[in-house]
Amino acid sequence: MGAPATGDEAWMAAAARLALRARPLCRPNPGVGALLLSEGERPRVMARGWTRESGRPHAEAIALEAFAGGGAKGMTLHVTLEPCAHASKRGPACCDVVADAAPARVVIGQRDPDPRTAGEGIARLERAGIDVALLDDAASAASLADYLTLRRLGRPRVTLKLALSLDGCIALADGTSQWITGDEARAHVHAMRARHDAILVGGGTWRADRPRLDVRLRGLEERSPQRLVLTRGVKPDGVTVVNEPADIADLDGVLSVYVEGGAGAASAFLEADLVDELHLYRAPIVIGDGLRALGSLGLDGPDGLEHAHGRWRRSYCCQLGSDSFTAYQRVR
Amino acid sequence: MGAPATGDEAWMAAAARLALRARPLCRPNPGVGALLLSEGERPRVMARGWTRESGRPHAEAIALEAFAGGGAKGMTLHVTLEPCAHASKRGPACCDVVADAAPARVVIGQRDPDPRTAGEGIARLERAGIDVALLDDAASAASLADYLTLRRLGRPRVTLKLALSLDGCIALADGTSQWITGDEARAHVHAMRARHDAILVGGGTWRADRPRLDVRLRGLEERSPQRLVLTRGVKPDGVTVVNEPADIADLDGVLSVYVEGGAGAASAFLEADLVDELHLYRAPIVIGDGLRALGSLGLDGPDGLEHAHGRWRRSYCCQLGSDSFTAYQRVR
Repeated sequence: MGAPATGDEAWMAAAARLALRARPLCRPNPGVGALLLSEGERPRVMARGWTRESGRPHAEAIALEAFAGGGAKGMTLHVTLEPCAHASKRGPACCDVVADAAPARVVIGQRDPDPRTAGEGIARLERAGIDVALLDDAASAASLADYLTLRRLGRPRVTLKLALSLDGCIALADGTSQWITGDEARAHVHAMRARHDAILVGGGTWRADRPRLDVRLRGLEERSPQRLVLTRGVKPDGVTVVNEPADIADLDGVLSVYVEGGAGAASAFLEADLVDELHLYRAPIVIGDGLRALGSLGLDGPDGLEHAHGRWRRSYCCQLGSDSFTAYQRVR
Repeated sequence: MGAPATGDEAWMAAAARLALRARPLCRPNPGVGALLLSEGERPRVMARGWTRESGRPHAEAIALEAFAGGGAKGMTLHVTLEPCAHASKRGPACCDVVADAAPARVVIGQRDPDPRTAGEGIARLERAGIDVALLDDAASAASLADYLTLRRLGRPRVTLKLALSLDGCIALADGTSQWITGDEARAHVHAMRARHDAILVGGGTWRADRPRLDVRLRGLEERSPQRLVLTRGVKPDGVTVVNEPADIADLDGVLSVYVEGGAGAASAFLEADLVDELHLYRAPIVIGDGLRALGSLGLDGPDGLEHAHGRWRRSYCCQLGSDSFTAYQRVR
């Protein structure tokens, strides 16, 4: 395998930004980005690609569309995920498409954990005489987080959203919660819904609030994800029921779940250690003895605080009007 | 009165930074900063001053020490607070000291609300033929926040500190709270203690934890502030007792109070609307059903959330190790 070169990381970051355009319409396929560069010390971008709606064509196929039959000679292809090695009814294997275009070099952001590819894509490129560099690129990993979670942990990636007062309340003691956060934060939540394959609430929240759980942003209404309700009770109409947090592993074509509450569902996912990302919206208000975001997480006992530490790393924060938004990643 | 000039604000910001050196050793006097500039378009700093230990000499007296008897002719003096107009046994009135040095111009950051000065300082400077510009300067106001609160609201300025998990807990359900936050955050708290005139805890916290409430930072041990306990019960040894939050107005020589908890004391100060600044330390841990920072704030009823909004403005935030620190100012 070839060594990474100066500039690989920056070009890969650009490919990872292209990959973000693919999600969520490419579901259930991973959203991949690809960038074809000309030969030489100051390369130009010759073509770009990202996974299209419903997962096909793949990013490499789009980037190389005009370069079949050796048309990419001398060029370098950056692709965030190892090109697939399995042909399907919907198109040929990407490693064959790449080999046919014959670039001099292929730089790969992340190895594909799919057992049908898992190194076989790289092997076939090298057998075709292409110089391959495999990075362990953070931007690629972030853009593929849902897919990599599904492949590595065998379940969709879970984001838990909490909208809190400064002192950690989600509502007044009498249940009043409209509104804790402002317009900008609520619009941000709708954009987050549009990025996920499924939204989940607990049965209590479903029965009490009948939340619409849809995307209310102009032009994105069609992106409203599948609705899940965590309950062991009667199945409500128009939603998919999940009996236990771990059952999200059985959902078909779902790479990401956005958990919106209430306290029971949020706590169940946290206690099962099934939350990969925490999204905290904080309004600059103080409530006091209001309702809480969470119930017991089983942290009692002298080692409780030790267990709580070291699990979350802040990855992003910004202001949304007068509210703040902070994202934390589960350190695994 | 003269008009503000280009550059006044930047020079006043420098004077306000000098003022920060005065606190807290100048207690119970306000910490003032003064900057003497040479004549001309590109002035040089001729002298600097800030209020000294126990409040004397005042900042202007120090800056003008070498310029008595008309020695500051043509120069400009920037001072964060209106020079005092009342002589005391400890020294002459600053407006007389300034008039004697006779700078061409005096720029003042904030009018002194002390009734013994309150415009009289400015009037005497103008009667001496000096051009005076009065700003309403934010940096000066921030550096004088304790003093201005005492003069305007008739009580010390109150900062409430809360150290919380992401979900707003201050301890596990069994009371374990050592430690929620890390070393850097705890050192920051000790530095904050050193800046305040008094630290307050509730009677329950005092009896349960016997907190030392001192400054454990090398070289700052002597800065440990006065200790207050909010209780209607028996007076503990070695502390001053406060029966009600409003009683802090009667404390002698105290311009600032740092409230460290517990939930009862914190809630009592918030419910009485006596908190001017909120300091939130947040550890990246999730606790669930732990102990809460606050009790009831009397926010029930349909208008509760409306009352909660619009009261706090985020003024500062930073990372302290893996914890975050955010300060909020009460909007009055």
